[in-house]
Amino acid sequence: MKYGARNQVQGEVVEVKRGTVMCQVKVKIPAEATMCSVMTLDSLDDLGIAEGSKVNVVAKAVNVLLTTD
Amino acid sequence: MKYGARNQVQGEVVEVKRGTVMCQVKVKIPAEATMCSVMTLDSLDDLGIAEGSKVNVVAKAVNVLLTTD
Amino acid sequence: MKYGARNQVQGEVVEVKRGTVMCQVKVKIPAEATMCSVMTLDSLDDLGIAEGSKVNVVAKAVNVLLTTD
Amino acid sequence: MKYGARNQVQGEVVEVKRGTVMCQVKVKIPAEATMCSVMTLDSLDDLGIAEGSKVNVVAKAVNVLLTTD
Amino acid sequence: MKYGARNQVQGEVVEVKRGTVMCQVKVKIPAEATMCSVMTLDSLDDLGIAEGSKVNVVAKAVNVLLTTD
Amino acid sequence: MKYGARNQVQGEVVEVKRGTVMCQVKVKIPAEATMCSVMTLDSLDDLGIAEGSKVNVVAKAVNVLLTTD
Repeated sequence: MKYGARNQVQGEVVEVKRGTVMCQVKVKIPAEATMCSVMTLDSLDDLGIAEGSKVNVVAKAVNVLLTTD
Repeated sequence: MKYGARNQVQGEVVEVKRGTVMCQVKVKIPAEATMCSVMTLDSLDDLGIAEGSKVNVVAKAVNVLLTTD
Repeated sequence: MKYGARNQVQGEVVEVKRGTVMCQVKVKIPAEATMCSVMTLDSLDDLGIAEGSKVNVVAKAVNVLLTTD
Repeated sequence: MKYGARNQVQGEVVEVKRGTVMCQVKVKIPAEATMCSVMTLDSLDDLGIAEGSKVNVVAKAVNVLLTTD
Repeated sequence: MKYGARNQVQGEVVEVKRGTVMCQVKVKIPAEATMCSVMTLDSLDDLGIAEGSKVNVVAKAVNVLLTTD
Repeated sequence: MKYGARNQVQGEVVEVKRGTVMCQVKVKIPAEATMCSVMTLDSLDDLGIAEGSKVNVVAKAVNVLLTTD
């Protein structure tokens, strides 16, 4: 299984916050960091994930912004 | 300085690949991982970054996709 | 402080509409125009913005669509 | 003609920079500001725009990031 | 009317699910497939669409991800 | 294998156009339609796809725009 995206990391779901249409999922990745994804509740249900689930976190490079101080 | 984005990490630029309009920037983040951003050459020049520069890597949660095996 | 994004403008928050997971923030920019951002409530709280706050509005060029009539 | 996007403004193309796959289009909008869009050359050719063309600049609110100093 | 986007298809709205800030719209496209868009309620109201409405579904190529099994 | 995205369809690569940093991939999907993805050449090489390859086309609903005439 391969993705056409430059940013990929594996992690574990640590929190799922459900809204009415959307939800927010926090994922613990290595190095004590967390990443966050927002998706529809329908997608959440399709994924069937909950706290403790192993997931792949994927982001296309065009949607990653760099800034400097 | 604060961002309205759930995904933020600091890193160091390790590679800049310039095209004709766009460029690709690889950033080393903690835990031996790298992230990648694609932006216009104009933005790269504004940022004034090169190998070794310290940058913040920012991504909105809506653009982060989760998958399971 | 610099951003790797082609679209940047300063403005003032004129409305914040909170949902259960997401929120919508309207920003008045020069020339009597308004722009709108949707983000998580968590990001809103991190930003600590409310009506009257000064903010920077940032969008990557790849996410800007042009159309003609 | 209506769009399901919160950010819409009309402008005039002031520069087109062509790459091999992508291109960058600068659009002058009211209030002496410019916005920038990156698209494929194929889309540019479909639009049939050049310097001086009138265009609509459209961005979904989820892809607009707010920051504070 | 033309769009600077590589992915365009016409369809018919088959479901609208309203949240507090966002909503989810399902669109039936040819070949028995459905596509899905998430937008703000404000955009939904501007569009004035409901079940049975004819809409154009538009996505920029940079936001389309390819994967292989 | 599951994705947290509402828009998913299988197709066959019919064209790959390589630039210096980015590339554009056209995918034939059922019903005589084509979809298009832009990604980095690095991602293309990781995917290892070429004309004739079977791929999954994935897009998050937040990046899908609806319009009406």
